[in-house]
Amino acid sequence: DPNLKVFSLNSNRDLAKEIASVIGVELGKCSVQRFSDGEIQINIEESIRGCDVYVIQSTSSPVNEHLMELLIMIDALKRASAKTINIVMPYYGYARQDRKARAREPITAKLAANLLETAGATRVITLDLHAPQIQGFFDIPIDHLMGVPILSEYFKNKAVEGDVVIVSPDHGGVTRARKMAERLKAPIAIIDKRRPKPNVAEVMNIVGNIDGKVAILIDDIIDTAGTITLAANALVENGAAEVYACCTHPVLSGPAIERIQNSNIKELVVTNSIALPEEKKTDKIVELSVAPLIGEAIIRVHEEQSVSTLFD
Amino acid sequence: DPNLKVFSLNSNRDLAKEIASVIGVELGKCSVQRFSDGEIQINIEESIRGCDVYVIQSTSSPVNEHLMELLIMIDALKRASAKTINIVMPYYGYARQDRKARAREPITAKLAANLLETAGATRVITLDLHAPQIQGFFDIPIDHLMGVPILSEYFKNKAVEGDVVIVSPDHGGVTRARKMAERLKAPIAIIDKRRPKPNVAEVMNIVGNIDGKVAILIDDIIDTAGTITLAANALVENGAAEVYACCTHPVLSGPAIERIQNSNIKELVVTNSIALPEEKKTDKIVELSVAPLIGEAIIRVHEEQSVSTLFD
Ligand SMILES: Nc1ncnc2c1ncn2[C@@H]1O[C@H](COP(=O)(O)O)[C@@H](O)[C@H]1O
Ligand SMILES: Nc1ncnc2c1ncn2[C@@H]1O[C@H](COP(=O)(O)O)[C@@H](O)[C@H]1O
Repeated sequence: DPNLKVFSLNSNRDLAKEIASVIGVELGKCSVQRFSDGEIQINIEESIRGCDVYVIQSTSSPVNEHLMELLIMIDALKRASAKTINIVMPYYGYARQDRKARAREPITAKLAANLLETAGATRVITLDLHAPQIQGFFDIPIDHLMGVPILSEYFKNKAVEGDVVIVSPDHGGVTRARKMAERLKAPIAIIDKRRPKPNVAEVMNIVGNIDGKVAILIDDIIDTAGTITLAANALVENGAAEVYACCTHPVLSGPAIERIQNSNIKELVVTNSIALPEEKKTDKIVELSVAPLIGEAIIRVHEEQSVSTLFD
Repeated sequence: DPNLKVFSLNSNRDLAKEIASVIGVELGKCSVQRFSDGEIQINIEESIRGCDVYVIQSTSSPVNEHLMELLIMIDALKRASAKTINIVMPYYGYARQDRKARAREPITAKLAANLLETAGATRVITLDLHAPQIQGFFDIPIDHLMGVPILSEYFKNKAVEGDVVIVSPDHGGVTRARKMAERLKAPIAIIDKRRPKPNVAEVMNIVGNIDGKVAILIDDIIDTAGTITLAANALVENGAAEVYACCTHPVLSGPAIERIQNSNIKELVVTNSIALPEEKKTDKIVELSVAPLIGEAIIRVHEEQSVSTLFD
């Protein structure tokens, strides 16, 4: 369909190429650069008049650069008479700032939603939002895809030796762990931890039986990896035979890579919702692609079919 | 007035302190930092309920960081029940992207206006917009202050030897040059140039008499300093005795400082609408403060007096 156009900005060019090939189109021609003073300069180099445009961009680090690229691209597409402007954000940045935890805090996840709508987005396709409530921050249609099937499939095919237990590193992640456990026909366990301040994690005790088992930790985001590596320690100390970890969004900031390398985690399985720079690729990290999932979602949205079967 | 609060973000802390002291208030307590992954973390550390809040922030380089800080701060202020949220942007970034010069370009100056309003700004105070039409991009009140009086005053007090001529480096700046010429009771001249592509400048010929005179070049923004240094060369080649340059907004990106140091320009006079980092401060650059002007504007806005006499 010549009216279906897929553009990539700078956050995930490799993923965007893969998505385009899943759909069977070429990426749209567009340059996204910087003026000498750092201002973003976007040139869309082909007509998109009357087209359904899909823009692939995660608001991963550098989040403010990637978000502004996206907003400016939406503005350019709107003024160039795109029929629909569909934002594909495999990773939705600022999702953790989704409520006022203290007085006089911003709710930046809602601000980002408002900014995208103001710029002119007509639909959002995203993956594993930190809180599913963020869907309600939008007044435009939003499709919320799930990474659990991709991560589960990997461990199913891996055929680890011994009994498996799926472990949530905190109470917030139990629903996700339960979904994975159903797919792997395994029980779940929960790490009962308290976090003293942001980016610092503390592990408490374990709820559930992990003794002699292969533990698979699952989370949505791994950022500084404090939570997940302390959880892995606690699991081994409490008798787990082996520990694997997986997440949809490998933010992996600050000390994350060092912590993972030095941890009890045997393998960390992630998706390419956030592109891993070369210096973050280690022998412990396995990257799975979300391109087939997102490509399929784009095809169904474009053909006005339901994407709900892609949701879990 | 305890209901008047002034906050500074990260672009111009020194200017903000000066403005607060002109007004006779302390800066509001607020921390603006980064989480480990680069996301902005803002904490407003005092109550602003029912207050008229003024936020000082230029969207200078890094423009996307500074703009997002501002948007997130506005969101936090709005949710903390500020009565009015007055944005003081001495330098308005993205102002040069104020029209579609080519097909399928964004109009980022308008996008920025929409984003500020969406976040919750109720008024904007700014200085020497690249195009005065940008005022019309806002649906909220905007006060547009002028740097010409400050720059003119400096040259009046300097008492340069010989006849002065005020020179506009391009056709777009003639109105500004004329305003300065009136204040210094001097004639004007215009550089008739063509620019082959962005950030590259080419000087043509000079309209007006500059022979044996002290030429003062005036512009709103000096970015890579290509235009202004070529203009200075052309002036000296065509018989000017001496060349000074001045501008409101010292963007000074890329090769700017080197070009100015190696140029015929005797002195470059700028304002602190954009904070100069230490490495850009040279013996040729003189910095004038806009704090008295902006402080006075804030006082008048707050007392609901006209600021129009501050406009030129
Ligand atoms: N980028 C970030 N890095 C670390 N912590 C964050 C970030 N953004 C928000 N937070 C904090 O994380 C908490 C929410 O995380 P959670 O409890 O996992 O939903 C809030 O207290 C936020 O202030
Ligand atoms: N940050 C920037 N640096 C250099 N050129 C820019 C910048 N932003 C916009 N422009 C270009 O500058 C031109 C407008 O400048 P002017 O003709 O001086 O109003 C347009 O062609 C823009 O594409």
